[in-house]
Amino acid sequence: MLFTDFGLDGPYTGQMKAVLHQMAPGIPIIDLFADAPAGNPKPSAYLLAAYAVWFTSGTVFLCVVDPGVGGARPAIILEADGRWYVGPGNGLFELVQRRAGNPRSWDIDWKPERLSVSFHGRDLFAPVRAMLDRQLARLATTPLSARQSGQTTSAIYIDHFGNAMTGLRVAQLPRAARLIVAGRVLEPARTFSDLRPGTAFWYENSNGLAEIAVNQGRADRELGLSIGVPVEIVP
Amino acid sequence: MLFTDFGLDGPYTGQMKAVLHQMAPGIPIIDLFADAPAGNPKPSAYLLAAYAVWFTSGTVFLCVVDPGVGGARPAIILEADGRWYVGPGNGLFELVQRRAGNPRSWDIDWKPERLSVSFHGRDLFAPVRAMLDRQLARLATTPLSARQSGQTTSAIYIDHFGNAMTGLRVAQLPRAARLIVAGRVLEPARTFSDLRPGTAFWYENSNGLAEIAVNQGRADRELGLSIGVPVEIVP
Amino acid sequence: MLFTDFGLDGPYTGQMKAVLHQMAPGIPIIDLFADAPAGNPKPSAYLLAAYAVWFTSGTVFLCVVDPGVGGARPAIILEADGRWYVGPGNGLFELVQRRAGNPRSWDIDWKPERLSVSFHGRDLFAPVRAMLDRQLARLATTPLSARQSGQTTSAIYIDHFGNAMTGLRVAQLPRAARLIVAGRVLEPARTFSDLRPGTAFWYENSNGLAEIAVNQGRADRELGLSIGVPVEIVP
Repeated sequence: MLFTDFGLDGPYTGQMKAVLHQMAPGIPIIDLFADAPAGNPKPSAYLLAAYAVWFTSGTVFLCVVDPGVGGARPAIILEADGRWYVGPGNGLFELVQRRAGNPRSWDIDWKPERLSVSFHGRDLFAPVRAMLDRQLARLATTPLSARQSGQTTSAIYIDHFGNAMTGLRVAQLPRAARLIVAGRVLEPARTFSDLRPGTAFWYENSNGLAEIAVNQGRADRELGLSIGVPVEIVP
Repeated sequence: MLFTDFGLDGPYTGQMKAVLHQMAPGIPIIDLFADAPAGNPKPSAYLLAAYAVWFTSGTVFLCVVDPGVGGARPAIILEADGRWYVGPGNGLFELVQRRAGNPRSWDIDWKPERLSVSFHGRDLFAPVRAMLDRQLARLATTPLSARQSGQTTSAIYIDHFGNAMTGLRVAQLPRAARLIVAGRVLEPARTFSDLRPGTAFWYENSNGLAEIAVNQGRADRELGLSIGVPVEIVP
Repeated sequence: MLFTDFGLDGPYTGQMKAVLHQMAPGIPIIDLFADAPAGNPKPSAYLLAAYAVWFTSGTVFLCVVDPGVGGARPAIILEADGRWYVGPGNGLFELVQRRAGNPRSWDIDWKPERLSVSFHGRDLFAPVRAMLDRQLARLATTPLSARQSGQTTSAIYIDHFGNAMTGLRVAQLPRAARLIVAGRVLEPARTFSDLRPGTAFWYENSNGLAEIAVNQGRADRELGLSIGVPVEIVP
């Protein structure tokens, strides 16, 4: 699983995939996010944590949202609830780690022969991820933890349809809570087809997060939403 | 083959691919369209029918343009001219079915353990498509039908270069027909390199549809075209 | 490796991949660039040459930036420094060829049964690339050449982050050279994290090219840069 802020355009994702393919032929490579909040590990951390729980134990995430590349931040491997993460130690894995039952992490000491200052995704993290598989064959996975913590009350992602995903996990909200965003009070709805066109509302998205939408419209434009917009809960 | 309106950004396509990979490792997964007309099964149906004929018998299309997800529309499997389709029964397969020799379709009764209300692509259609392959090994494919029907006289897709694809199949147009779009009369041309830069024209695209273009320019901007714009035929 | 100007949206890349998969099942297919300068083989040639050197000997590049498709330009196969290239003979491979030790090229005589006038990527180049692998098994690769030539002094690509990549290879620039672009003199910097936010500078990117950036900003917007903008060197 790739989780980056590279975008799908340009050569960055392709070069990482080439390294993975070359060092570990036949490895399955799937783009999860190529448009995580750019250069912004904090909302990216909430996004990663929300999506990672959906994957089976043993899944490996290669994660690059790395504004401090070439600087002092460490490079790390994390095991949390049986899933594995490779990437920069800049807060990107903070939520995954905080919510896990018994997380373990390691600093990456290994250095490639040739390390650019601006593209550790290709030069450092992809090789480490490629080498990880041989280790994982010996892995005894840990059971999923039910303990969960950490809520953020802001929008963390705007999707292709203009919906604004928040960091709020619905299972932890009061039943039938309303949300206030951009000066508007939004009611919960089960799904789009329940509502009249043009209605703004929030619903539990397919990953358990509260997501703000406008039926047959774009919530980002119609409500003026962007990443970081604060969201309040009215129980 | 994936045919969706998800866009390539965001996690939707990646999560579907993860399900396919997990349930049917080694399955080839190719994005055909990730930008089918969003939430709009009708032009999507013309687009799908125009492209599907190009693929060999036995190809499976996983199709999700599903504005009524979570509502009452059925989930279906369709076999048409030896190709297979999995997706919502909301008109998306209407043209494929209408043009096929002897199409067969089934309602999907199977339900996953966990079915979100907003993402049947991941929770329902992808698992069904993954399970389908084991059935297809026993498949006796049907011969290609020559019978074709159904024309739509409007733009159904704007591509990366700004060309506007219409639903008109050139084989069914009068020879040397001109098209009227946005108040302009367009002559046919064999290909771009025949014309002076800036000339607007139409040509038979690589899938047999009439496509409107401007040599070395963007037809969408220069002629003011968008999906749904009407196109008239002048024989 | 795919190198095209198709964009990732739309069906073009997907149809090429379908051909590759059908004719050579299991072939690894990785998108390097889908957004090479559209319809513009000259800057694309610099981009391809800069990125190709990074790949191991034996890599095959299927390249389609082909504004003259359907016209008189030849279709070619090129072997240069052990890497292979399939695509149009319109200047796209000029830099790769000029910088190679002992390049060899062939005109493609083979014609598919069905050749559209507008999509040789799918109908001609993809089949040739699929058939090439069987030949390459017998290939004795040639050693990498150190000889390099050809500089272009303009921007050749704008990436997802708004950075402007130039065709200048840093190894051939005077040490600590400054660049003039859009009326601004830019100092070199080792990497982003060395600088205050908002500072414009240039640096050696991960492929050895001079790249113009603004720390925590978009150089394209803030300096008014686009593909083709001239860049001057101040030694």
